[in-house]
Amino acid sequence: MKIVLGPASQQLGEKIAQLLNAETVPVAFKTFPDGESYIRLEGKVQNEEAFIVQTTSPPQDPKLIQLAFIADAAKRNGAKKVTAIVPYLAYARQDKAFLPGEAISIETIARMLKAAGIDSLITVNVHQEKVLTKFPFPAKSVSAISLLAEYFKSKGYVEAFALAPDKGAMHIAEQAKKILGGECGYLEKQRDRYTGQISVEKKTFDVKGKTAIVFDDIISTGGTIVAASRVLKELGAEKVYAACVHPLLIGDAEKRILEAGVEEIVGTDSVPSHVSKVSIAPLLSKEIWEHKSG
Amino acid sequence: MKIVLGPASQQLGEKIAQLLNAETVPVAFKTFPDGESYIRLEGKVQNEEAFIVQTTSPPQDPKLIQLAFIADAAKRNGAKKVTAIVPYLAYARQDKAFLPGEAISIETIARMLKAAGIDSLITVNVHQEKVLTKFPFPAKSVSAISLLAEYFKSKGYVEAFALAPDKGAMHIAEQAKKILGGECGYLEKQRDRYTGQISVEKKTFDVKGKTAIVFDDIISTGGTIVAASRVLKELGAEKVYAACVHPLLIGDAEKRILEAGVEEIVGTDSVPSHVSKVSIAPLLSKEIWEHKSG
Repeated sequence: MKIVLGPASQQLGEKIAQLLNAETVPVAFKTFPDGESYIRLEGKVQNEEAFIVQTTSPPQDPKLIQLAFIADAAKRNGAKKVTAIVPYLAYARQDKAFLPGEAISIETIARMLKAAGIDSLITVNVHQEKVLTKFPFPAKSVSAISLLAEYFKSKGYVEAFALAPDKGAMHIAEQAKKILGGECGYLEKQRDRYTGQISVEKKTFDVKGKTAIVFDDIISTGGTIVAASRVLKELGAEKVYAACVHPLLIGDAEKRILEAGVEEIVGTDSVPSHVSKVSIAPLLSKEIWEHKSG
Repeated sequence: MKIVLGPASQQLGEKIAQLLNAETVPVAFKTFPDGESYIRLEGKVQNEEAFIVQTTSPPQDPKLIQLAFIADAAKRNGAKKVTAIVPYLAYARQDKAFLPGEAISIETIARMLKAAGIDSLITVNVHQEKVLTKFPFPAKSVSAISLLAEYFKSKGYVEAFALAPDKGAMHIAEQAKKILGGECGYLEKQRDRYTGQISVEKKTFDVKGKTAIVFDDIISTGGTIVAASRVLKELGAEKVYAACVHPLLIGDAEKRILEAGVEEIVGTDSVPSHVSKVSIAPLLSKEIWEHKSG
């Protein structure tokens, strides 16, 4: 088994390899003056199972292309099986044709990754697990929510209220609740189809004077967290925290969230950022260990 | 037959459709705040042969992904055959593994495009024609050099000296010579493996007092044209022009070329730019006409 250190997840790859006591294969990469990506494996993969660790957070297209080239290089250099470890899987939210004439982007990406040389894939908290069943190879999503909840527990926030900002994220809040031991709930979120503006239906949770933590898979532009945080504040929550697996934090998302009164944003190293306070390396190394053949 | 107007080559696609008197399918496209591309076909392709016109000049990765999504949407919406018209084909220069551990990028891209739904491909002056033989579908490159030479002929530059900046481009200079009626030649180019600096071996062409035109497939950072232009000037060429099919013109390429004494840069609309004075629409419409089934 070799852990191939994709340029987008070098540190995470190294942590995973350490936990597994596995050899790493560094990847030399550069961008030509015209913008083309170049990659080269700096270690042998012949007759090995290769696990390529490469997240596909923004800019997602170059990272996907790099991942494809690394898979091609691994196969070309004799790897017997190539598994992509893609903590944040780009395009996973474009999983159906809402209007005639649309592509189903995530399915196209999956077929392309297979064509590049990928035989199976492990990702973390994919937006909708059912998209993975359409992939042309075995694909699995594992959850980092317990690790995030453990972080808060270790800081003393036991019995904090775990809020899912929409119904689809309720399973996330429930996972967190198991660790934190408090209550959980969800908001009914609505996104204006024209403006993209997010509004939430007010609910009455018993959060008065309590610590509340909003748990979500992704923080992108932050609109969802801002709206959820306002509701919690109005209901009298004493302190509000935001936790997510994939801290994309597009544009001024972080500033907006903190201005909405959120004490702290906690993310994982699925998407390397300064809020990546929780490492998913233990989760992924365990998964790789169980996944590897023989 | 439908001409699908890829976002990167909308105008060229429209010109091609006009020449063929074919219906177009516009493509709605946008970029989400996180950088993901979205596309939607705004016309029917059911039971049609679809020709997607989409160049892949920088930024090449998003344009390749868009092309893949358009192909997926075309197939998903019933197109019976999908041909990609990719005037500038990205990654075509990464066509072999020079060192162990490298990917063969262009082959990976070709396999991925097939997986997305592309059944055949037409490109223009690909850097090395032989790369196309490795594609998992029929792929062909057509030459726009005659069109460029005709442009100069129409301006009165008959019997201009056609210079290939390296031996590999000699066939290009020979094509130009047939139209211009003058002489042609090539330079021995060397690229320093460490600095990327380009030097040329001086040759003695009879260009004294003449007009000389440097013909190449791509102008990228412009180093090759600058070096070639200097040689021509030293040999007494009165006026030096630069012609290329794909005017990538990375960074300050144009400025550097003009500062080296080149009168004018002439490119095609393979890569839309303000030097795209020659349209390849006639070339591609003819090719599509011959290519279409029945």
